[in-house]
Amino acid sequence: MNYHQILKDIYNQIQITIEVGEVANYIPALQNCDPNDFAMSITLIDGTTYNIGNYNHKFSIQSISKVFAYTKALSLMNGRLNQRVGVEPSGDPFNSLIQLEHEEGIPRNPFINAGAIVITDILLSYYLDKDTSFDRFLQFVRNVSDNENIHFNEEVYKSEIQTGHRNIASAELMKSFGNIENQVSDVIESYFKHCSLEMSTSELSRSILFLANNGVDPLTKKEILTSQQASRVKAVMLTCGHYDASGDFAYHVGLPGKSGVGGGIVAVVPGIMSISVYSPRLNSWGNSYSGTKALDIFTNLTGYSIF
Amino acid sequence: MNYHQILKDIYNQIQITIEVGEVANYIPALQNCDPNDFAMSITLIDGTTYNIGNYNHKFSIQSISKVFAYTKALSLMNGRLNQRVGVEPSGDPFNSLIQLEHEEGIPRNPFINAGAIVITDILLSYYLDKDTSFDRFLQFVRNVSDNENIHFNEEVYKSEIQTGHRNIASAELMKSFGNIENQVSDVIESYFKHCSLEMSTSELSRSILFLANNGVDPLTKKEILTSQQASRVKAVMLTCGHYDASGDFAYHVGLPGKSGVGGGIVAVVPGIMSISVYSPRLNSWGNSYSGTKALDIFTNLTGYSIF
Amino acid sequence: MNYHQILKDIYNQIQITIEVGEVANYIPALQNCDPNDFAMSITLIDGTTYNIGNYNHKFSIQSISKVFAYTKALSLMNGRLNQRVGVEPSGDPFNSLIQLEHEEGIPRNPFINAGAIVITDILLSYYLDKDTSFDRFLQFVRNVSDNENIHFNEEVYKSEIQTGHRNIASAELMKSFGNIENQVSDVIESYFKHCSLEMSTSELSRSILFLANNGVDPLTKKEILTSQQASRVKAVMLTCGHYDASGDFAYHVGLPGKSGVGGGIVAVVPGIMSISVYSPRLNSWGNSYSGTKALDIFTNLTGYSIF
Amino acid sequence: MNYHQILKDIYNQIQITIEVGEVANYIPALQNCDPNDFAMSITLIDGTTYNIGNYNHKFSIQSISKVFAYTKALSLMNGRLNQRVGVEPSGDPFNSLIQLEHEEGIPRNPFINAGAIVITDILLSYYLDKDTSFDRFLQFVRNVSDNENIHFNEEVYKSEIQTGHRNIASAELMKSFGNIENQVSDVIESYFKHCSLEMSTSELSRSILFLANNGVDPLTKKEILTSQQASRVKAVMLTCGHYDASGDFAYHVGLPGKSGVGGGIVAVVPGIMSISVYSPRLNSWGNSYSGTKALDIFTNLTGYSIF
Repeated sequence: MNYHQILKDIYNQIQITIEVGEVANYIPALQNCDPNDFAMSITLIDGTTYNIGNYNHKFSIQSISKVFAYTKALSLMNGRLNQRVGVEPSGDPFNSLIQLEHEEGIPRNPFINAGAIVITDILLSYYLDKDTSFDRFLQFVRNVSDNENIHFNEEVYKSEIQTGHRNIASAELMKSFGNIENQVSDVIESYFKHCSLEMSTSELSRSILFLANNGVDPLTKKEILTSQQASRVKAVMLTCGHYDASGDFAYHVGLPGKSGVGGGIVAVVPGIMSISVYSPRLNSWGNSYSGTKALDIFTNLTGYSIF
Repeated sequence: MNYHQILKDIYNQIQITIEVGEVANYIPALQNCDPNDFAMSITLIDGTTYNIGNYNHKFSIQSISKVFAYTKALSLMNGRLNQRVGVEPSGDPFNSLIQLEHEEGIPRNPFINAGAIVITDILLSYYLDKDTSFDRFLQFVRNVSDNENIHFNEEVYKSEIQTGHRNIASAELMKSFGNIENQVSDVIESYFKHCSLEMSTSELSRSILFLANNGVDPLTKKEILTSQQASRVKAVMLTCGHYDASGDFAYHVGLPGKSGVGGGIVAVVPGIMSISVYSPRLNSWGNSYSGTKALDIFTNLTGYSIF
Repeated sequence: MNYHQILKDIYNQIQITIEVGEVANYIPALQNCDPNDFAMSITLIDGTTYNIGNYNHKFSIQSISKVFAYTKALSLMNGRLNQRVGVEPSGDPFNSLIQLEHEEGIPRNPFINAGAIVITDILLSYYLDKDTSFDRFLQFVRNVSDNENIHFNEEVYKSEIQTGHRNIASAELMKSFGNIENQVSDVIESYFKHCSLEMSTSELSRSILFLANNGVDPLTKKEILTSQQASRVKAVMLTCGHYDASGDFAYHVGLPGKSGVGGGIVAVVPGIMSISVYSPRLNSWGNSYSGTKALDIFTNLTGYSIF
Repeated sequence: MNYHQILKDIYNQIQITIEVGEVANYIPALQNCDPNDFAMSITLIDGTTYNIGNYNHKFSIQSISKVFAYTKALSLMNGRLNQRVGVEPSGDPFNSLIQLEHEEGIPRNPFINAGAIVITDILLSYYLDKDTSFDRFLQFVRNVSDNENIHFNEEVYKSEIQTGHRNIASAELMKSFGNIENQVSDVIESYFKHCSLEMSTSELSRSILFLANNGVDPLTKKEILTSQQASRVKAVMLTCGHYDASGDFAYHVGLPGKSGVGGGIVAVVPGIMSISVYSPRLNSWGNSYSGTKALDIFTNLTGYSIF
């Protein structure tokens, strides 16, 4: 298949509506971007890569970091993880406290904020030392990505911390139900550092290649997850990866994916490739407008739906 | 792959817990069954079939009929369908009225009862005559299934009608929002007839073979759906096919599927086969206990997760 | 106290905002009224009456009928009534099904629609014959009101029946929980007849005089309720009489009251008087805008809050 | 009326069920009490007092402190207060975050925890200095109570702080909506000090005598509130004073009241007296079991319902 031409076609088609949607405005730091920017990268199992647009531009990966955190937690805890966090779609916006209250502090899935906060708490307990915990997680992400040049953005992090009252609320609520082990402030600081990681589409696409290859990085041969665990991460990406538009993404795109409010999306074609796309304007569910559209076109052109 | 041996292995493994779970008790007619019964059938694209257990026993397919109704409605309306019913997982039990009220009468997806009632309303408007409407739908199911020997069970139907107050409530609520076009009583009668269809696992597996083959029945060559529509039906099965255990089914089994409270489940391995399993004892989410377990074992043995 | 002057002062003060709010539009028949109409009547324990405005104009009493129905049901069942309907404010709009689903078919209180539907079901079971049931209830209202000239409006009734899907939904939902004994259609027809009763402010004020006098009509000496029962009806009026603006009405007016979407309100000053006011434009909670304001002015001028 | 005899009768009648209910167990410090303890005090407008039981025993007044805080805030802000907190019954348990999320951070009323936290925030802004803020509030309570011997319990306070995650969650959620002005930790510390105040029934009854006398302490002649403000505090006590059993309390007791999870209740007979009762075992809504019963008997014996 001529991926180069496919990326070009996508690039052309999305230009028509590149000004639709709004850049995330809940923290000022996320607005430091070109709202009409676009980039897309695909990485085949054999390492061949195709890129288009501003694919070396590092952006805030935000909730895409939840894939790395969940990957690490699942590799540590496997089935025991479901005592702390579920795997069901939430049916509510990404930051709702309602379901949390109804279900006694067990978040619906690891890809809503509350679920990722519990995952962060699990990692904090595992890494033991709160001062070095984030560095060790960052080292894990670099290892998975085969890329030492991944950092978090201090300005975004500080901005998140200042406005993160709702995430703190959900952590305190879960702590009241006994589902947070560490100090809430430590968990939240670590969680916001995860969200503040910066990567380009070419880096992101490369970093999740292991998910396209049954849990093993096909280039470095590192076994990040077992094949079954990799399937499960992808299953949760499909059912829960786009907040309350997850069903819509499965319906139109048909690939396991995860979006971030910074405008990035990652997706996986099992056995074939990993994909990342970036465009900062968001649709009403908080997912990249042009990024979603690009992936929709991609599966139409390639026939690469998993269904 | 030795499917015969795989079915035998599954049959043996599920015997250990065959007495776990309860048969549906909301209508008396559903209790006329052997609670420890089990059957499983697979149909390959080339028509080869493998069966085990009581695979010629006809049981009440209940909500599995929603797959046929949705298939027909999608073939008629395609994208316009989303003005009447969504494609998002509900996060609530199968018969909840809460989301319906919050979302102004638009049901979350076509596989919860409210969604299937809207689909039934759409078919009733299409078939025009309420007296022959169900017969025409039944003829569609027979056509899809290449099987004239499919009927509905009068006793089950009457039992449903007598106890269906909650479904009527949800139809009336949707009518108050303008999302039901026909008389509520006509819609509900038709809906309960759909639920009262009876099929065996061998019949059910055969009937959805078109979903495994991009919408075209590979044996009769009938085009039931376009390839894209078939993908979409499977996407909704994956995200919404097991009520509020859909995420769990995707996580453990990893196949598009749809369960019925009568104890049946259908599932699809795209490009390879369709599957049906039956065992009437249900887990706490209303899905067949042993049926779910059988499919979990099946994907473990075959590696046939879509992820 | 110079009640004549007080009514005049109120009449003048409310004129300023008499065009604020909207007449109920959910059924066409309710719009057959002068939107800027106003009437107010008070009836002292000794029978002295004071009126102002269009006080002989009969309007649709709508939910004010719930006071008569609850009065009858409480006199029949007393404490046993709380197995069928609660006495707590709902915190939700008057026609919500959400709480009904959470609380297994037991409506929060007798003054939301669902609660009044249960009360109607109780009266239907008591009066036995569904064909004469409403006539017997009407006779009860006439008896309480010492007024044979009370009727229901056929046009309003038919209009309600045609658009009453949400009320039918809530009755069907309660029936699914076992909290409706009779046929839903019979209960709903009777309920809508209650709502379609027509009375003027002078008639309404007179009709609830028994509540101002410990349950006994001070003029006819009929004992409608025991003193304790009368207190309880007034307690429920105070906490639940104005849907989800009940707290606001208690805060600003400080009297037990009940509003109807037709624009009427009744209120009681225990030991002193009963009051009725009418003005068809409604505030955002479905209560008469000028009627609420008139009662607010009334308690400010007289100091007749119960607090 | 022979109040002495009435208190004796109540004391005897409640003994039969004095072992029903459970002492609050969410903080260890509240369990340091005799579970079968009982005390009741009434204070007439002229200052005459009647007591029975352990009426000099100081207990944790907990949520009864919300009456003092609301009184102070209403005297400061009057009608402007409703931009920060409503006056509607909540229909949900005392510590639910659900309504808070639906209503964008505006708590339903000042007597649920979230509402009292907003009130505390208002007082903190008014008193300016967070270090002396609580002392100034304590001085206000002493002034209202004409009693310098009122203190807070350090052990209870520390216990609350350690387990108060849900209250912190609700403060953080409100801050995310912009309805908390100060640091959440400062507000919460102050709030828990309010809850940790200790008073006896004789002190509590005396302290709210101003509410029985139109806002003016009849003995010291201090004007705590205007007459209208006092009516409003009592209206909110009636509709919201007993969490989601407020309607039941109005129905059975018929007096404005406020309960605390420490086992205390205060109530007011407007124009006649103030009342306090104490018994630490709670009913399922978190209100004193024997205290509620004692007040029920009291209004039956005296006829002192406001209805």
